[in-house]
Amino acid sequence: MEEKRSLLGITEKKEDNFSEWYNQIVLKAELADYAPVRGCMVIRPNGYAIWQNIQNYFNKVLEERGVKNAYFPLLIPESFFKREAQHAAGFAPELAWIERKSEDSEERLAIRPTSETIMYDSYSKWIRSHRDLPLRINQWCNILRWEVSQTKLFLRTREFLWQEGHCAYSTEEECVKEALTFLEEYRKLCEDILAIPVIKGEKTAKERFSGAKQTFTIEAFMPDGKALQMGTSHNLGQNFAKSFGIEFLDDKGNRQFAWQNSWGFSTRLIGALVMTHSDNKGLIMPPKVAYAQIVIVPILFEDSKHKVLKESKKICEKLNKNGLICFVDERENVSVGWKFNEWELKGIPLRIEIGPKDLTSKKVILVRRDTFDKKAVEIRSVVKECKKTLDKIQEELFARAKRFLDSSIVEVRTWVEFKNAIENKKLVFAYFCESKECEEEIKRETTATSRCIPFDQKNKEGVCVKCGSVAKRKVYFAKSY
Amino acid sequence: MEEKRSLLGITEKKEDNFSEWYNQIVLKAELADYAPVRGCMVIRPNGYAIWQNIQNYFNKVLEERGVKNAYFPLLIPESFFKREAQHAAGFAPELAWIERKSEDSEERLAIRPTSETIMYDSYSKWIRSHRDLPLRINQWCNILRWEVSQTKLFLRTREFLWQEGHCAYSTEEECVKEALTFLEEYRKLCEDILAIPVIKGEKTAKERFSGAKQTFTIEAFMPDGKALQMGTSHNLGQNFAKSFGIEFLDDKGNRQFAWQNSWGFSTRLIGALVMTHSDNKGLIMPPKVAYAQIVIVPILFEDSKHKVLKESKKICEKLNKNGLICFVDERENVSVGWKFNEWELKGIPLRIEIGPKDLTSKKVILVRRDTFDKKAVEIRSVVKECKKTLDKIQEELFARAKRFLDSSIVEVRTWVEFKNAIENKKLVFAYFCESKECEEEIKRETTATSRCIPFDQKNKEGVCVKCGSVAKRKVYFAKSY
Repeated sequence: MEEKRSLLGITEKKEDNFSEWYNQIVLKAELADYAPVRGCMVIRPNGYAIWQNIQNYFNKVLEERGVKNAYFPLLIPESFFKREAQHAAGFAPELAWIERKSEDSEERLAIRPTSETIMYDSYSKWIRSHRDLPLRINQWCNILRWEVSQTKLFLRTREFLWQEGHCAYSTEEECVKEALTFLEEYRKLCEDILAIPVIKGEKTAKERFSGAKQTFTIEAFMPDGKALQMGTSHNLGQNFAKSFGIEFLDDKGNRQFAWQNSWGFSTRLIGALVMTHSDNKGLIMPPKVAYAQIVIVPILFEDSKHKVLKESKKICEKLNKNGLICFVDERENVSVGWKFNEWELKGIPLRIEIGPKDLTSKKVILVRRDTFDKKAVEIRSVVKECKKTLDKIQEELFARAKRFLDSSIVEVRTWVEFKNAIENKKLVFAYFCESKECEEEIKRETTATSRCIPFDQKNKEGVCVKCGSVAKRKVYFAKSY
Repeated sequence: MEEKRSLLGITEKKEDNFSEWYNQIVLKAELADYAPVRGCMVIRPNGYAIWQNIQNYFNKVLEERGVKNAYFPLLIPESFFKREAQHAAGFAPELAWIERKSEDSEERLAIRPTSETIMYDSYSKWIRSHRDLPLRINQWCNILRWEVSQTKLFLRTREFLWQEGHCAYSTEEECVKEALTFLEEYRKLCEDILAIPVIKGEKTAKERFSGAKQTFTIEAFMPDGKALQMGTSHNLGQNFAKSFGIEFLDDKGNRQFAWQNSWGFSTRLIGALVMTHSDNKGLIMPPKVAYAQIVIVPILFEDSKHKVLKESKKICEKLNKNGLICFVDERENVSVGWKFNEWELKGIPLRIEIGPKDLTSKKVILVRRDTFDKKAVEIRSVVKECKKTLDKIQEELFARAKRFLDSSIVEVRTWVEFKNAIENKKLVFAYFCESKECEEEIKRETTATSRCIPFDQKNKEGVCVKCGSVAKRKVYFAKSY
């Protein structure tokens, strides 16, 4: 038994070999698996259930915000990419093309790397009047980007799942306002549901989405000292409207081009969740997004088995009825210790232990996955205690990650300090001139990229940390995924 | 106004030009649109909302049946198709291949036309012991089949959305039993939710899924005299398990190949819904799958506008709180008549009309979309009355479709009768020898195909309607989509 158990467990430490530790958690908690196709992944039921919880949460947000789901084609004609020049240039290297069949006289088709072009062709047919605006559509779909760098499950794969929202408006003001609204919804998703703190801001010109006027972003910082882009929202201005002819008659009868934004997050969020919260025993899922929140492990002896199982099921039913996702691990072919290890590895936030003595004392033991704190609670107050403890876990996971983020930020003034801080795996904050040349130079020397220009900076000027010229704003830099 | 209204409406009659009538409903009720890529479609928010309702219903069924959702890669290596010979032969003509990049040394990749092969490669890694069985996984995804025939929105497109369930078992008995269980769940979805009656049975050898031992099907019959396959479930036997090496150790320690089934339905169901229920005014949605069940149209006059709108919203809120999907059409730039026409076209099952006089009498008018029956009901009992009426609509839509199906079945004994019945757009039921040759001959002469061999036929023998040889069972034949 011991031998099997060690095989099941995580054999690398987070602090020693972060990358391998991460891979083991994803594989052994059965969140995802490598696919037989290079660069692709299989999202296993445990991982997909987390994605579904994210979808369920976000579909409610979409509904409240007047966004409707739809589905557009996987294949995009070559000419569509060429219409918006920057967009075309940005995505060209990542496109996968379909072999043309001899009977087809059609143009070359690529698998969508993002859907601006194919969606906006339809928008140009659907939008006629200011009364058709705002038009707000989202799609949940798969995306293919032929990246050549090494595969990293959830973080860097050729195919991934995402949502992409695409809205059209009659004024730029409304367009930018809602681009920021959706960014704020992303922040809430990350912080309130996934318990991952983020920094909100704008991307520099160099890091902007191909074809956008402005790109807004939320950035998280991982325990191995790399930043991770969690979601972006783009003010597309009228760039695509002009390329695709999205025009409307305004209330005075004048023809105008629509203003557009687009915004997306992907299954990469699951990778961020794993990296942020998990430990050397395995995955830790924040309760609000966990596919199961509580596992009941009955301690079974021959003479009391029946009673203990019966009580376990009763408690489980009560918890489920009260909106908690709970199950009983009834297996008899593995030991109690094996069960503890397995559910710790798989990240179930809370465990309830119940044995024959607990029936007499009318108490059960709650064990937190994140801290391993144990607490005996009265069976009659088990619902209340579980809810309280799950809330506490959710809060404390966020607080811990927030402390890490805050302690990782280093404000620097000189280039030497900058390089040292990047070397020390910090999230560097510095005055920056925002020129592309300077940013490329920084990347060349340190491999760090700009992550975001936070909003609401007080209007003080400074000196660019790299080139010494005037800098209006401070910018975050870090190595990244 | 009148001119606009007629443009909005359906200009072809169901009885005169069924095909064009169908296209108009799909386009004008904004369920779907043609895509700029040949053979593809855009599923618009109204259509996608119906699909989401189907998904929500069926996800509950999946959960109850122990099936978990997952996601497998879009791209499938060429060698995978070749492993199961019949499967390869069946899908070869429909595959879309990815152009190979010069830097890739990998094998050729196709877009999934179905996912047996890519999923079972993973199954062969995951399944080790009888304790890993049954393994039940479903995925909701997009599928590409490079059909060359003419595009028909929802019914015949190169890309479509579907669910595909793939289970593995330790015994064939369990495998077949559950293949039939999922078929029964499909019947319930079609009959209880979509209000479309179906016939359950088995496919003949000729119509069997490529690589399956048996294919089970549910078949519906459309108003234009064509059968439509609504969902299938396949007993794959050990065919794929042998090709992909899905082996397990049974409880005695012997190695065995797993038994497998797979089953799917697609967005084609939305096409069936449109054809079955709609009329010359437009779409009719069964209440259980409608994206909105009730529209409230307030009759607005300047002096009473405020009061009428207020009451309308109050009623709407009450209905929504009671689990009915209701909205108020508050627009002031279109007439009441325009609103009636628009929501009739878009298929909202029930309309509530409320004007200033109704406030005095404390009554509102309910109008059924399917029959246009009007009824005045007390405002205080509006929830009860709406629920009752929606239930009635759901029931009567099914009953009407069932009467049509029953009246379309013609049992024949001779080849002349057979040909006449097919000519008269009937669903023909006849003794059939089940040989591929005979079936091909029937198709050549009539364009009809076998639809299904219904279950539970009494063990009488007969004479094949075509070749006169011994026939053990009766089989349904029809033209089809």
